[in-house]
Amino acid sequence: MAEHLSQSELDYPFKLLEYLNGFRISKAIFSACELGVFELLLESEKPLTAGEMAQKLGTSEDGLERLLDLLVAIEILNVEVVQGTAYYNSTDVANLYLAKSSPKSLHTSIIYQSQTIYPLWNNLADAVREGKNQNEKTFGLPSEEIFSAIYRSEDEMLKFMGLMNSTWVIDGHDIATAFDLSGFKSIIDLGGCSGALARELAKEYPSSTVTVLDLPDVIQSALRHFAQEGDTIRFQEGDFFDGEIPSADLYILARIVHDWKDDKNLKLLRKIHTACNTGGGVLIAEALLFENRRGPTVAQMFSLNMLVQTEGKEHPPSHYTHLLNEAGFRDVQVCRTGKSYDAILALK
Amino acid sequence: MAEHLSQSELDYPFKLLEYLNGFRISKAIFSACELGVFELLLESEKPLTAGEMAQKLGTSEDGLERLLDLLVAIEILNVEVVQGTAYYNSTDVANLYLAKSSPKSLHTSIIYQSQTIYPLWNNLADAVREGKNQNEKTFGLPSEEIFSAIYRSEDEMLKFMGLMNSTWVIDGHDIATAFDLSGFKSIIDLGGCSGALARELAKEYPSSTVTVLDLPDVIQSALRHFAQEGDTIRFQEGDFFDGEIPSADLYILARIVHDWKDDKNLKLLRKIHTACNTGGGVLIAEALLFENRRGPTVAQMFSLNMLVQTEGKEHPPSHYTHLLNEAGFRDVQVCRTGKSYDAILALK
Repeated sequence: MAEHLSQSELDYPFKLLEYLNGFRISKAIFSACELGVFELLLESEKPLTAGEMAQKLGTSEDGLERLLDLLVAIEILNVEVVQGTAYYNSTDVANLYLAKSSPKSLHTSIIYQSQTIYPLWNNLADAVREGKNQNEKTFGLPSEEIFSAIYRSEDEMLKFMGLMNSTWVIDGHDIATAFDLSGFKSIIDLGGCSGALARELAKEYPSSTVTVLDLPDVIQSALRHFAQEGDTIRFQEGDFFDGEIPSADLYILARIVHDWKDDKNLKLLRKIHTACNTGGGVLIAEALLFENRRGPTVAQMFSLNMLVQTEGKEHPPSHYTHLLNEAGFRDVQVCRTGKSYDAILALK
Repeated sequence: MAEHLSQSELDYPFKLLEYLNGFRISKAIFSACELGVFELLLESEKPLTAGEMAQKLGTSEDGLERLLDLLVAIEILNVEVVQGTAYYNSTDVANLYLAKSSPKSLHTSIIYQSQTIYPLWNNLADAVREGKNQNEKTFGLPSEEIFSAIYRSEDEMLKFMGLMNSTWVIDGHDIATAFDLSGFKSIIDLGGCSGALARELAKEYPSSTVTVLDLPDVIQSALRHFAQEGDTIRFQEGDFFDGEIPSADLYILARIVHDWKDDKNLKLLRKIHTACNTGGGVLIAEALLFENRRGPTVAQMFSLNMLVQTEGKEHPPSHYTHLLNEAGFRDVQVCRTGKSYDAILALK
């Protein structure tokens, strides 16, 4: 594959230049979310001019027009020109994933990426040099206590919860259905945050009880900001590292293990094994690296993200199998979804 | 086109997620350049392990390995695993465009993008809101004097000159050959910076004299850092806005007009028209927007970049034609290269 890219690029590096310009495309979409462009177009019953939108959004017309035109060029928005005037409207994909009020909205995830992750990655070279996260250099926060950094204010906690929520709104169904989990009658999502993955599990397995266990502040925020009418999931305050883990048939660890070093993960998995009912198990949801570690690209990017922001990393399936076996679990099964997150199930 | 993206993305937004992750790919390549990865692999006569490279580059092995693996996943590097050990080597495209010592290296351009443009774009939403550049918010520099910001230190001036140099090393030949310029015996590249475009012109038209006119500090830096053995181009100190413009057959304005507002550009073009020999002309090199302004994507990105960093913007050909006619030029011809920069020629 590499040879293919190389050979076609030697005359003129189109693909390489696209990579180098990637940050501009990301930030253009991020900024449009921050300014409310997609929500305004969803709410509007007709296409709007740049002038009308600038007035409603409180922006300059010239700047907004350039942003809108770039979004048209990358097919995120549509435009129609009538007698010399450009009328912008949204696409189905922007309405579904970018408008703030859509049930599948990535809006809060994008705000988090724009305001927290983009600045953190500005220090990627230092992260590689030092082999540690850049919370201190970027935000003046201690690099050791990663969730003190991530949860440094209610606003930051909400943005992070929004990120997690978006992830499981679009990837949760694949995780919930990666294996038949209907035999597990009590399920606890450890660090289940806003409850988005728990809701997918509850929808898929209506005869099981699904509980989100997370830190008290997170549970309070989840109840205040992410509760849904007719929620069948339960919320429980706790601390799976320092507190008790209640007994259950199945434990979910979704994007938890990749935050921490192996000794901490092993201790956690052993604790889960002890609490787990006979015949129960644990389901890990992470972006799985290939065994040779060279891909998938998304999992590689996440592993660098873990370097920049946490003390953990992404792993290939064999690494999780090893950890799970060490903790006493057996019958490890792996399901790659082909999307961003994969699933691993192991039994007690 | 927009419908196509929308429809294929509704089930799962693969392309949209790629856009949102674009900044991570950019920063991964930028950081590898900053850490010296590509130069080390070019110089090495054999593939290297992550451990060997980490030692030579003074980085953590874990962080570097994650970075290298991502670069393999996006086909910028190659890897071969021998008895469980990964040996990394470069691709032709990385050797040609990313290694610092390659004649076609984008290295200095990448350093500038990483350290100056990436942080500026962190304030894109504010640039759109305010309709003005973000030099003050990003670097504490006055927003009105854009070249005081760009040239705020010798180091920054050199980085910016490196950016310009890289551009014309890879795009200069297309600009020099967009039209037959052999009839113009004296050519002055106004704001010609490091001389990279002037060199392409001198190579293509050996019977013409080609002179770079730029600010005294820039000329001194060009002579110190960018002079080449056997250079046939001349360097002349001057100020094309506030000083005299010497007479010549052809003037080049490459990435100049897009920095400024129209009144300033019109004044400059009139001054050039006055100085220009009879039968002479002016060649403008810029990224040309489509007439409907919705593309090309690269030109749109540059126009947003001008918003974030300067007081100018990119334009469609009709706008340049209008300016050139206003200044007294005629016979405007446009050549789109299909790459990043296009050319417009007009005669006195």
